[in-house]
Amino acid sequence: MRVALGIAYRGSAYHGWQSQPDGHTVQDHVERALGAFADRPVSTVSAGRTDAGVHALGQVASARLHTPLADARLARALNAHLPETIRVVHLATVPDDFHARFSARGKTYEYRIWNGPVLPPFLRFYTWHRSFPLDVALMQQAADAALGAHDFAAFRSAQSVNHSTVREIGRAAWRRGDGDLLVFEIAGNGFLRYMVRSLVGTLVEIGWRRRPPEDIARLLNQPDRSAAGRTAPPRGLFLMKVEY
Amino acid sequence: MRVALGIAYRGSAYHGWQSQPDGHTVQDHVERALGAFADRPVSTVSAGRTDAGVHALGQVASARLHTPLADARLARALNAHLPETIRVVHLATVPDDFHARFSARGKTYEYRIWNGPVLPPFLRFYTWHRSFPLDVALMQQAADAALGAHDFAAFRSAQSVNHSTVREIGRAAWRRGDGDLLVFEIAGNGFLRYMVRSLVGTLVEIGWRRRPPEDIARLLNQPDRSAAGRTAPPRGLFLMKVEY
Repeated sequence: MRVALGIAYRGSAYHGWQSQPDGHTVQDHVERALGAFADRPVSTVSAGRTDAGVHALGQVASARLHTPLADARLARALNAHLPETIRVVHLATVPDDFHARFSARGKTYEYRIWNGPVLPPFLRFYTWHRSFPLDVALMQQAADAALGAHDFAAFRSAQSVNHSTVREIGRAAWRRGDGDLLVFEIAGNGFLRYMVRSLVGTLVEIGWRRRPPEDIARLLNQPDRSAAGRTAPPRGLFLMKVEY
Repeated sequence: MRVALGIAYRGSAYHGWQSQPDGHTVQDHVERALGAFADRPVSTVSAGRTDAGVHALGQVASARLHTPLADARLARALNAHLPETIRVVHLATVPDDFHARFSARGKTYEYRIWNGPVLPPFLRFYTWHRSFPLDVALMQQAADAALGAHDFAAFRSAQSVNHSTVREIGRAAWRRGDGDLLVFEIAGNGFLRYMVRSLVGTLVEIGWRRRPPEDIARLLNQPDRSAAGRTAPPRGLFLMKVEY
């Protein structure tokens, strides 16, 4: 049988999603837990390989396994085996041709910024603290330029090796949250490595009036990684959901 | 001069408020930071000595110190020196007879429980996870018995040595929060060590129908520590504010 798992995790303590020799990634923990209830080792694929420190509310992973447990019991059993900062929030048997990455049609991320003088200590691992006032209207105007299909080569990791760097963005919206919280929600058919964090870093420089709002459009038309803003830290980034 | 500091902290990583030889308490960090901006070592007193793992949004501490810095600058300078999980959220010069503990007229605590099958990983350090359904109406009925002045000897730490164990409670109210969150708010003129956590542990056993709601009244009339419920873990407890 093939199962799809909806997984939430607090990324702070893990070396990202993808399996590593040190065994301290989310994938390693999930595969060890699955292996405890299957008749052989289990490997998973996920919709997105989140980096170290990045969180997820709606990561999706798929796996083939043989287990006598029904879906709901397997989900409970996995949570009993997993660290409390990794939770299986959904588990369902899926058709054999389901693949968490290749079947995904789109993903939604959020990036959270605390834009006030004092960062509440409870948000330390979940937001990027920017104490200078940010012009949200300006950041929204700049973000609008990212809507549609564009070459995001300027906003990717220098080490990434994607064949195509064109991605289509359907939503890129800033909103105010509780207190001094600013949330950037971005949805698209796919994302390059560091793309959201690099876009947010550039938008923050725009909101701080350190660069003009036209820079997003300019970087999309003339991709130059060195011309984009700094990459925002991983702690503010959340993989919210994956669409199939 | 004498200053009062409003302090918020994430208690998870600290050995409580009160200074210890290992130096890894909130008080130790605050005193080291104050010392960096004063002409001699600074000692503080706080409104409440929160235990290891307990959080605060509105702890208050007072200290005598000599510093050339104005209040707002001192607050910023302290935050630059403190770990990000301890924040000075308020700082004011106060009269010489102000004492954070003895001047306090009352305190408010909250205790947070996640009462659903799956605990979101982001609440791991901030809630007590009880997955069996709790009867909130029953817990409220039982909590009402704690209102007014009572001998709370049954709900204190076995090691505590208070002269009087009578405290007056002005508010003891359960409410539902986001998702499966249950919040118990309790305000009173003072609290014994472990009092809130022991009360919550007993109320949870009532809400789970493992003991009758009349038990709170019975334990207040016939103090017997061994007859109260288990002490709820520190991670769900927040010192919300102190009144003067």
